[in-house]
Amino acid sequence: MGFESPLLLTLDLLGTFAFGLNGALAAVRFARLDIVGVLTLGMLTAIGGGIIRDLILGATPPATFSDWRYLTVAAAGALIAFAFSQRLDRLAWPIEILDAVGLSVFAVTGATKALDFGLGPAQAVILGAITAVGGGTLRDTLIRRVPSVMSDGLYAIPALIGALIIVVAILLGVEGFVAAMIAAAVCFVIRVLGVRFNLNAPMPPGVRTDDSDRADD
Amino acid sequence: MGFESPLLLTLDLLGTFAFGLNGALAAVRFARLDIVGVLTLGMLTAIGGGIIRDLILGATPPATFSDWRYLTVAAAGALIAFAFSQRLDRLAWPIEILDAVGLSVFAVTGATKALDFGLGPAQAVILGAITAVGGGTLRDTLIRRVPSVMSDGLYAIPALIGALIIVVAILLGVEGFVAAMIAAAVCFVIRVLGVRFNLNAPMPPGVRTDDSDRADD
Amino acid sequence: MGFESPLLLTLDLLGTFAFGLNGALAAVRFARLDIVGVLTLGMLTAIGGGIIRDLILGATPPATFSDWRYLTVAAAGALIAFAFSQRLDRLAWPIEILDAVGLSVFAVTGATKALDFGLGPAQAVILGAITAVGGGTLRDTLIRRVPSVMSDGLYAIPALIGALIIVVAILLGVEGFVAAMIAAAVCFVIRVLGVRFNLNAPMPPGVRTDDSDRADD
Repeated sequence: MGFESPLLLTLDLLGTFAFGLNGALAAVRFARLDIVGVLTLGMLTAIGGGIIRDLILGATPPATFSDWRYLTVAAAGALIAFAFSQRLDRLAWPIEILDAVGLSVFAVTGATKALDFGLGPAQAVILGAITAVGGGTLRDTLIRRVPSVMSDGLYAIPALIGALIIVVAILLGVEGFVAAMIAAAVCFVIRVLGVRFNLNAPMPPGVRTDDSDRADD
Repeated sequence: MGFESPLLLTLDLLGTFAFGLNGALAAVRFARLDIVGVLTLGMLTAIGGGIIRDLILGATPPATFSDWRYLTVAAAGALIAFAFSQRLDRLAWPIEILDAVGLSVFAVTGATKALDFGLGPAQAVILGAITAVGGGTLRDTLIRRVPSVMSDGLYAIPALIGALIIVVAILLGVEGFVAAMIAAAVCFVIRVLGVRFNLNAPMPPGVRTDDSDRADD
Repeated sequence: MGFESPLLLTLDLLGTFAFGLNGALAAVRFARLDIVGVLTLGMLTAIGGGIIRDLILGATPPATFSDWRYLTVAAAGALIAFAFSQRLDRLAWPIEILDAVGLSVFAVTGATKALDFGLGPAQAVILGAITAVGGGTLRDTLIRRVPSVMSDGLYAIPALIGALIIVVAILLGVEGFVAAMIAAAVCFVIRVLGVRFNLNAPMPPGVRTDDSDRADD
């Protein structure tokens, strides 16, 4: 994985847990699924980005699928969300935080693994972002929402920036734990500020950004 | 494939045929597609689960794609459904039976192949279920329905149970034709009973199971 | 790629550019996405078919992802569509032409690469068509439309014919630039005539083709 550090592995698993929780809550809120649907959607959100990353890299079977720790942590997040879905509805803020942690860590681990497999820098940055947003995109597609990556303020941009920082750091030879933490932290801060202040990327010329008839209504 | 037995290969092809028929009928009923759309959806339903399985295992090109028998049988099922769609509308019950056959066989073959490729037991069970439900999930996504695996009573659960039985059998050294048949039969019976008696997995606490405004309406 | 010829590489990149433009315009028109969404959808449309092709062939990382020229051309098409989306709305015809170019070239390159990787003739024809329609299918799924391949007149059929011609030519030993050009040209002409005269593949017996309540409304 390029992340043999126990702390980074812990962060990676924390991100998996957060996405499992998040995907399962989305299943409860937007699609009223039963326990199998909630578990499926939570786990797919948690490990889907890593599966897409590893399929593109040819690193099969995908690490997030073959490593039992990812499956366990993803399932735990989904089951907790299932059990406490009513109570967790009041806790939107910590869930957004955990979601941002997952986004940040997966962008960094995805880009690092892409470099390890010999991809070029630009491709590594893009694959880092794909890893970060992939699980959520599968989630939204299955419950028939326009994916967050295409409609939700600053979502792909912080992932791209985080991946860019770690790729530049590795190319400069300053790889390691500190560089990864800084890259993830920058991604995290941009994402959280974007959510907090409702920042948005530019719309096409002539399209008003305040219209309310977006496709995901 | 782990299934050199002619009878099991026959069952596997029968499952492919059933899913081809089923996917094509869904195309006619829910999306009013032309012959290309019906053929595409039927074949994707029939061989999609096996393709996902083999991509995850790194067994490329996927067996259901490179082996002409699967393509032929899938296309035959789809074309028959296209030609006789009006008449087949009155035959829902045999179609459900064939669908359950496909689900059962694919769960068993998928789990067996996963063990052959060195995945752990839990991963093999999950991959068996993914093989069983994967084609239908692609089908439902393309015609914009919430996938059966997330909303349709007992669909993933019998697949997981069937896969679990064959994995335990293989780990105990009692693999072979009889074990596979028993595993598939248990999956089949649970699925058919679930359809017959409209059984459902538990909903999240506080969500009534009798509400009719589900997301797939 | 089987296409070392500079002219065919140019055509391939032109097809990528056309699909990038087309996907981004679809993002602006049908989903009102911001710049990240437009760029994502444009690039996915442009390189998605090649990624699916290479995943099935086990040719990882996919050429359209690891080769910076495809990424650059796809991004350029998407960004131009973003900037000039209002003006391009009046230019539907050239966009359809470019889309048909992409469809034609990808059908031929996809089928050729499939033969290079040892697939059988029928599988190569199908994989050529998958390469041609794959990107557009991902595009339509993400913005929640029934994919063109299943609902839009003659779309898969010209791709299948173009792929069939190049496969037959290669099996007859007359491969090379001229054969590829003829195969792509036949696909292109059928597609353009289909759009121009609104040709459709047959509907299932008993389904009227003039009804207006199709699933993609």
